[in-house]
Formats: sequence, structure tokens, C-alpha cells
Amino acid sequence: MGATRKQLQAMLDKSRFIRHYGFRVVRSGESGCTIELPHRPQLERPGGIVNGPALMAAADCAMWLAIRARIGIEKDALTSELNTAFLNAAKGGHVYCTARILKFGRRSIYGTAECHSKSGQIYSHHTVTYMPI
Amino acid sequence: MGATRKQLQAMLDKSRFIRHYGFRVVRSGESGCTIELPHRPQLERPGGIVNGPALMAAADCAMWLAIRARIGIEKDALTSELNTAFLNAAKGGHVYCTARILKFGRRSIYGTAECHSKSGQIYSHHTVTYMPI
Amino acid sequence: MGATRKQLQAMLDKSRFIRHYGFRVVRSGESGCTIELPHRPQLERPGGIVNGPALMAAADCAMWLAIRARIGIEKDALTSELNTAFLNAAKGGHVYCTARILKFGRRSIYGTAECHSKSGQIYSHHTVTYMPI
Amino acid sequence: MGATRKQLQAMLDKSRFIRHYGFRVVRSGESGCTIELPHRPQLERPGGIVNGPALMAAADCAMWLAIRARIGIEKDALTSELNTAFLNAAKGGHVYCTARILKFGRRSIYGTAECHSKSGQIYSHHTVTYMPI
Repeated sequence: MGATRKQLQAMLDKSRFIRHYGFRVVRSGESGCTIELPHRPQLERPGGIVNGPALMAAADCAMWLAIRARIGIEKDALTSELNTAFLNAAKGGHVYCTARILKFGRRSIYGTAECHSKSGQIYSHHTVTYMPI
Repeated sequence: MGATRKQLQAMLDKSRFIRHYGFRVVRSGESGCTIELPHRPQLERPGGIVNGPALMAAADCAMWLAIRARIGIEKDALTSELNTAFLNAAKGGHVYCTARILKFGRRSIYGTAECHSKSGQIYSHHTVTYMPI
Repeated sequence: MGATRKQLQAMLDKSRFIRHYGFRVVRSGESGCTIELPHRPQLERPGGIVNGPALMAAADCAMWLAIRARIGIEKDALTSELNTAFLNAAKGGHVYCTARILKFGRRSIYGTAECHSKSGQIYSHHTVTYMPI
Repeated sequence: MGATRKQLQAMLDKSRFIRHYGFRVVRSGESGCTIELPHRPQLERPGGIVNGPALMAAADCAMWLAIRARIGIEKDALTSELNTAFLNAAKGGHVYCTARILKFGRRSIYGTAECHSKSGQIYSHHTVTYMPI
């Protein structure tokens, strides 16, 4: 019923509005989803820091995939709220974002997402609410 | 001491990580700042809806400009928190985003931003916290 | 169909879990609702500052009343999210809280609330999401 | 340098504005802090659900203690932002709240708090920002 990593990646690659980030599905399962935001110079603010909107886009995307991994490719959900705290400058290297679902309700789905380095240093922390449609 | 609309637009045009949105400064002053996010097909999710990360980028940018309009081009501030609620689908036409500063503290700056249509229909509501650097 | 100020006050006075705050409905209407949190020494943190949870309770209550003013006494709604920024210390005198509904949807209701002094100085800013039940 | 569980409990017991909740420090350490909110009928909304402001007060308190456990009794910090999502009705029995610090910065301290049952069912999820003073 849920979607596989491969199906999620194919879905991402077809999504024009998100494709330019080049997100890659690293891992997906019942417990959540991790994606990679490949490093590119265009994502950097002065000082070589990955810009905030890119981290928020990653959080939104990682949660979207975590949900689709559960409900499958046929159904969908829309972001209703997304709260972000920027904790440490994301400098150099790829960024990873891991989303975890804390509540999967009939009317709303809520979870957290964290952007972090490969070694686990946290860049930003997010809470995300989606509504099934 | 503050920055003029022209100075803010020039600052935006030089910011590589944000330039691809093509933000235009519509109005800026003591009370806040309004920018325009010109409509482009690449911003659309399926269904012709402007994607959420673009609205969050607009909120972040509008508040950044509202702050720079006050403290000037020489000083800067970094986003520490940004909360978003998506209220209505942003369909067709340009998107406008209006930021207002509610507290300008020595240690943090807090305000709201709203993305809306030209005629005033609200698309998303944001609260934004910046830290002076 | 909606509820009057008098009906809202009667509803508050019967709500055991909230009664100890002594909230008073100052004004209610289509556009929103203002309540008063009467000053009492027990609400103060050291330094004579009204404690944060009291301001959050006021925000939650003011939005609840703004919704009931619209949907009436018979129907209800539950808080699903409440975000708070504490902006200035609430010192001395009664606290007022004004809630405004920005979106009244079938599945969720979203608005802002502000705690402030009688003269309008802002103490805290909140965004509140309710779900109709 | 930090504070012990016993010191934190003594500090709570002296805090008039919070004392009526009867919070009990269950566990505290470098990684965070867990408190208990003892069940009392006055905390219940109709339907026997612990009211939301009590959960927010618990989150605020648990994070405050997690910080004091680290910086000690002599220093203090003030809440600047507190975001809450109510996930499941808190029915019957005591409520526990566990706070974890994700970033301990010189200018701000950020973490999460979760209210849950003794057996681990989640009631509410919070993010909390404090500023050292």
C-alpha cells in the first residue's frame, strides 16, 4: 500500500517545482524518511551558508515523502503549517533532512524534520503539519 | 540611516541565492515592506498552485528587507525562526508579501509577514524572528 | 446564529478549568474578540511580570470566544496548534488579549492573538489553529 | 555547576506563580528533564481532558528546568518562543513532560518538549526557545 524508495524518487523527479533542488531519497520506511540536498554554490548565502528557504523546502519535502511512503503514491496531502528554527549555519557538503511522523490522524498529520550534516550536526529543526486530501 | 527602496532592490539583485525568484520591492518604509514575487510556471505545483517554499522564501525576504530598511545596508541580521500557515491556494497572477515589524529589540527582531494576491486575498501567514549580527 | 458577549461570558463563568483566571469578555463581534485578564499577584513571576502560561491561556481563550461568537454556543472547536512569541514583559495592570480570525475553513480555523496593555503596548503575539468538532 | 534534581524541586516549590500545578521533578540531567503534572479534576476540560494551557505550562517548566540543570541555580533564562501542537487528548492519570535541549547557544537556547502519559503516549509536542539573562 505504501510507496517504495524507488517510487518516491520517481515522483520527485517528475515534480517540476521541486526538481531544481535535486533531492535524493536516501532512506524511507514506516518510521520516517531521509533525503539529501546535494550541495551547489547557488544555494549559498554570502559566507558559504546554505540559504534558509532551501532548508525549509527540504523539511517540507522530507515530510511529504514520509507521508507518501505510508499512504502510497495514489493519495496525497498538503502542507498546512511548517515551523522552522535555524540552529547552526549549514556550511559545506551536502545537507540531509530526516522527517519523522509523530501523529497520523484522519484530519491531520504531524511530525518533525531535522536538517543535518552527514555526521549528524543539526542545522535546523522543523515541525510540519499536513492535511490529507 | 535606513535604506531606500532603490538600495534594497539593488541589494536583492546582487544576492545570487535569491535572485532566481525575481523579487521586486514594491514599497518600503518604517512600518514594513511589501515585495512582489512575479508569477512563473516553474513555481507551480500540480493544479497551478504556487509552491509553499516560494511563499516561505518571500516571507523571509520581505522581513529581511523591512529590517534593512530600518538599520540600513551596512548592518545585517539572520533569520532564527520562521513559522508558516498555508491558508489559501495561491493561484494565478503575481504574489505579494507584506512584512511588518512588531518588536525591534537589541537581541531579536520579531514580526509578521503575509503572502497575498494583488486584491488582498491571503495565501499564507508567517511569523519571523531575526537576530541582529 | 453566533453568540452574544453575554452568552460568551456566561460560558466562561461555567468553565471550571479556566474560571480561576477570571477572564472578562470586553468586546466580541464578527471581526474578533477582546478579553481582559484581571491583574492578580498570583500571576506574577519574580520581578512582577505576568507569567507566560497565563498569556498563552488568554490567547487560547480569546480565539475560542472569537470562534464561538461566530458559530454559536451549540457548536465547538478544539485547539490544534498555538505558537507564542513573548515580546515585552507584562508588568502591572490588567492584561488584554485580542484575537482575530484570518481564515475560517471547514477543516481548520486560523488566526492571531495579541496580549497587550490597556494603552496598546504589546506583550505577546500568538497564532492559533482550531479544528471544528 | 549545574543544579541537582533536589535543587530544581526546591526552586519549583518556591515559585508562587507555578506552585499550584504541583509539578514534580522526575528526572534531570545533561540530556534533559522530565517532570510530572499530577492529575487534578480542576485541570480538566469537559470530557475529562487535561486543558491545553496546563500542557503548555508543563512544557515551559520542563525546558526551564532542563536549562537550570545545566547552568545552575544562580543564572536564569526567559522564554522567548513556545510553539505547541496538541496531538491526542490527555485523559486520566498524571501527565509527564520531557524536555530536551537541541542547541545551547550564547544568545538563545532551543529544544523540544513532549507531554505524554506514563506509558509513553504523546499528548502534545512543543518547541521552546529561551534567552539567557
